[in-house]
Amino acid sequence: MSIRERIHEVIFETETPAGRLFDVLLLWAIALSVIVVSLDSVQEYRLRFGTVLKVLEWFFTILFTVEYLLRLYSSPAPARYAKSFFGVVDLCSILPTYLSLFILNSQYLLVIRVLRLMRIFRVLKLVRFLGEANSLSLALRASRHKITVFIGAVFATVIISGALMHIIEGPESGFSSIPKSVYWAIVTITTVGYGDISPTTPLGQLLSSVLMICGYGIIAVPTGIVSAELSRSSFSEKKETEGADHCSTYHFCPNCGVALKNREKEEITDRRGR
Amino acid sequence: MSIRERIHEVIFETETPAGRLFDVLLLWAIALSVIVVSLDSVQEYRLRFGTVLKVLEWFFTILFTVEYLLRLYSSPAPARYAKSFFGVVDLCSILPTYLSLFILNSQYLLVIRVLRLMRIFRVLKLVRFLGEANSLSLALRASRHKITVFIGAVFATVIISGALMHIIEGPESGFSSIPKSVYWAIVTITTVGYGDISPTTPLGQLLSSVLMICGYGIIAVPTGIVSAELSRSSFSEKKETEGADHCSTYHFCPNCGVALKNREKEEITDRRGR
Amino acid sequence: MSIRERIHEVIFETETPAGRLFDVLLLWAIALSVIVVSLDSVQEYRLRFGTVLKVLEWFFTILFTVEYLLRLYSSPAPARYAKSFFGVVDLCSILPTYLSLFILNSQYLLVIRVLRLMRIFRVLKLVRFLGEANSLSLALRASRHKITVFIGAVFATVIISGALMHIIEGPESGFSSIPKSVYWAIVTITTVGYGDISPTTPLGQLLSSVLMICGYGIIAVPTGIVSAELSRSSFSEKKETEGADHCSTYHFCPNCGVALKNREKEEITDRRGR
Amino acid sequence: MSIRERIHEVIFETETPAGRLFDVLLLWAIALSVIVVSLDSVQEYRLRFGTVLKVLEWFFTILFTVEYLLRLYSSPAPARYAKSFFGVVDLCSILPTYLSLFILNSQYLLVIRVLRLMRIFRVLKLVRFLGEANSLSLALRASRHKITVFIGAVFATVIISGALMHIIEGPESGFSSIPKSVYWAIVTITTVGYGDISPTTPLGQLLSSVLMICGYGIIAVPTGIVSAELSRSSFSEKKETEGADHCSTYHFCPNCGVALKNREKEEITDRRGR
Repeated sequence: MSIRERIHEVIFETETPAGRLFDVLLLWAIALSVIVVSLDSVQEYRLRFGTVLKVLEWFFTILFTVEYLLRLYSSPAPARYAKSFFGVVDLCSILPTYLSLFILNSQYLLVIRVLRLMRIFRVLKLVRFLGEANSLSLALRASRHKITVFIGAVFATVIISGALMHIIEGPESGFSSIPKSVYWAIVTITTVGYGDISPTTPLGQLLSSVLMICGYGIIAVPTGIVSAELSRSSFSEKKETEGADHCSTYHFCPNCGVALKNREKEEITDRRGR
Repeated sequence: MSIRERIHEVIFETETPAGRLFDVLLLWAIALSVIVVSLDSVQEYRLRFGTVLKVLEWFFTILFTVEYLLRLYSSPAPARYAKSFFGVVDLCSILPTYLSLFILNSQYLLVIRVLRLMRIFRVLKLVRFLGEANSLSLALRASRHKITVFIGAVFATVIISGALMHIIEGPESGFSSIPKSVYWAIVTITTVGYGDISPTTPLGQLLSSVLMICGYGIIAVPTGIVSAELSRSSFSEKKETEGADHCSTYHFCPNCGVALKNREKEEITDRRGR
Repeated sequence: MSIRERIHEVIFETETPAGRLFDVLLLWAIALSVIVVSLDSVQEYRLRFGTVLKVLEWFFTILFTVEYLLRLYSSPAPARYAKSFFGVVDLCSILPTYLSLFILNSQYLLVIRVLRLMRIFRVLKLVRFLGEANSLSLALRASRHKITVFIGAVFATVIISGALMHIIEGPESGFSSIPKSVYWAIVTITTVGYGDISPTTPLGQLLSSVLMICGYGIIAVPTGIVSAELSRSSFSEKKETEGADHCSTYHFCPNCGVALKNREKEEITDRRGR
Repeated sequence: MSIRERIHEVIFETETPAGRLFDVLLLWAIALSVIVVSLDSVQEYRLRFGTVLKVLEWFFTILFTVEYLLRLYSSPAPARYAKSFFGVVDLCSILPTYLSLFILNSQYLLVIRVLRLMRIFRVLKLVRFLGEANSLSLALRASRHKITVFIGAVFATVIISGALMHIIEGPESGFSSIPKSVYWAIVTITTVGYGDISPTTPLGQLLSSVLMICGYGIIAVPTGIVSAELSRSSFSEKKETEGADHCSTYHFCPNCGVALKNREKEEITDRRGR
């Protein structure tokens, strides 16, 4: 086995001991680097531990850069990897740190590094989950007419009651414009209820009460349908997987080491073997 | 086919390519015009883009006026259309702009244009949904005794706990009157919790805690029943529709091009043919 | 039929036209009188419409007094009626107005009149519902061990996290005592979230986040069980009732005209006939 | 029967009349002592009833100390009891009062006494429940892949939207750092909505609205799965228990009087009998 194949196995394969260890280490590295980014955004910690955080940040950036280059090197289809969803996420999670060398006041740019978090889904094998999600999306597509109607109803309720509140409470109150009133209606209908904007006139309070009681029932329907489908498909998938999983699972790919079925694997070996 | 019939087909029919295109364009026009109304209500944008918004508003108003007149012209029963629910909505969505020419300080009147949003339900074929809703309303009517009792229980809980909080917290607090306290109780029982009014005395906080924990369970029942019935009927309807939908669906009507069954269609053709 | 029997029929019977009309009128009278009490509690309205509200209040009080006396007169068991739950509620809803003649500063006493609202349950036949509720309470009693454990878990979670927040946030914050912190924990775990008390220290915010995410799942269980049982029993009851209801329902009683089964009715007639 | 065995029966056994009485008394003692701790944390009450509360506290502490010593004495395996979960809780609930004699400013230490509340689970036989919980945890373990993915999704949503809000609203707003913004995102996604931090910019309000509507559906899935499993297992367990419960239940143990099956009991008697 060539070095390249060995690297490929460690990075992309998840069933071998080396691949498993790599996944666990990667998870920790991602988690820690996100914590570093988070702490770096706290004024207090930036002033006190600024240098430590900067060193750690560069440590993780270089680590992820090396990983990115190794992925490019070992992938049988580097271009496809680079253009894939996770390829872009991988790049996004290292680029801001390098850009901060050239751009002054790059503080906001640096926050983008939080997107690194998306990478945990690669390790959590979200890809496989997304694959199964097809059955979910099929189920949802079947009932899309009704979901559309309900979401339409939620939107109409929210916009119309927002507009009414704008008239009732008047432009001097918190309901100073329709978009703001719609924001209030969404905050209310989802029962979040910040209280940054709240009705003060008796009529406004009456309308809010109606919105709370009725809207509650309306918004429950689409979210109910979606989450019922989500959990149903996640359970049925579970049962299916349990039986056959440990022998026929995919080798390579997530996400773009290509090769998934044994036949494909042979082909690749063939291509390489020459 | 006469011009009138051709117009009728484009506006009321939804299965032909022209009818489909018309529906999509109408949806976009409605969405954009509601966005214009919304932006117009923001002080900042009105000052900056006032003229642009006014021009756009008149553009959409004339567009919808033309559509309204064509509907009146092409409908086999113009009077019935004008008096139908969507006929009134269609009129409401163009009238305020014309009235603003004669009435000074018509700002609040203009917000009514948001009712245009109701028109999307015509395109989303809510009518058909409302038709199926009969089965839902039958199901709900069967359990109306219990729903009435539960809604009665929610109201009684809300009013009595509101009155108690008015006594406990005293008229100097936020709970200055029973209606306001009832508003607070609704905000609490639906778990919205703005916090504009909140108990400050220990006894008031104790009663609130009881209301939160118990009321939570009480309000869940009617909304649960309603939304369970809603989603159940929406799914059963889906299955029914899937089989026969693409061949026997309604021609014309939504909403009031009349004619729905083939037999009716023939009659109309007959009437016209003479 | 004697006058007394006739009155009995109108007031206690619900199947005859006269009894039905009486029920509807009573519902309206209760609703209107509660609205009068509510409006009377609003400072503004009391100052402006004070005399009108007072007159209306005395009108309803005398009306309910007459009804109360007629109930006492026509009931076959006046003492039992007077001591029954609804008998006490009936008395409570008229007494405060009379007491206000003797007691100065009786404002808070007057709010008790809101308890009139409980009387609507008599008309809504809550009694029958409560009868059926036996099956519910049996079902709940069967799972009472687990419900007790879960409610215990909710209480323990709420008290322990309240105490922890009291330590973490310190007595100078909103979390000034354990009872207040427990109130905060209940506001949080039920997702009401007033925001009158909210964590300010990083550690407090971390603990709150854990409480929100975990507690959410814990409190859902007992309320879920209770409301599932409630709606299940309310539906099963519906089916049972539909078949036999219109011929064998109760005559008299709600609530305490006694007599429910035909056998009992005969006995009463016997007693009276003598 | 020796005194030691008699004590063992009263404290650990729950089926005998004496054991049952002991359990009820213990429940009351725990509840009252927690109320005393709670009231003691209220500045006002501490100043007014300080001596009474102190006396009551010492009364309960000595009571629980005696109980603890009796448990140690009568348990067939004192060391195992002392190291068991409830053994540690028992110790934690008496230690702080004694430590307060030696340590000045022990106020915060005293709050730990609230942990006494954990002891009610012993009486509520949570142990048995926890035993059954194995079947629950097995069920959850089977679907752990999906739950992990969903919890990962919730975390990623919360952290990424928190970071975005930090950029959008800027560091001068309430969203002053990523951890604080993440706290806000959790408060929002669980629909608690304190309102201590809330978006003020239009873009921020738009993103919040999306988070509220979508996030609502996402967080419902893991909590839904967990609580569905919880209540399902709690009901199935109920049925199982009902049949055989009153004859074959455990003797001793909860929690660490050892002995659970008749066979084990004989062994212990044997050991003692010698």
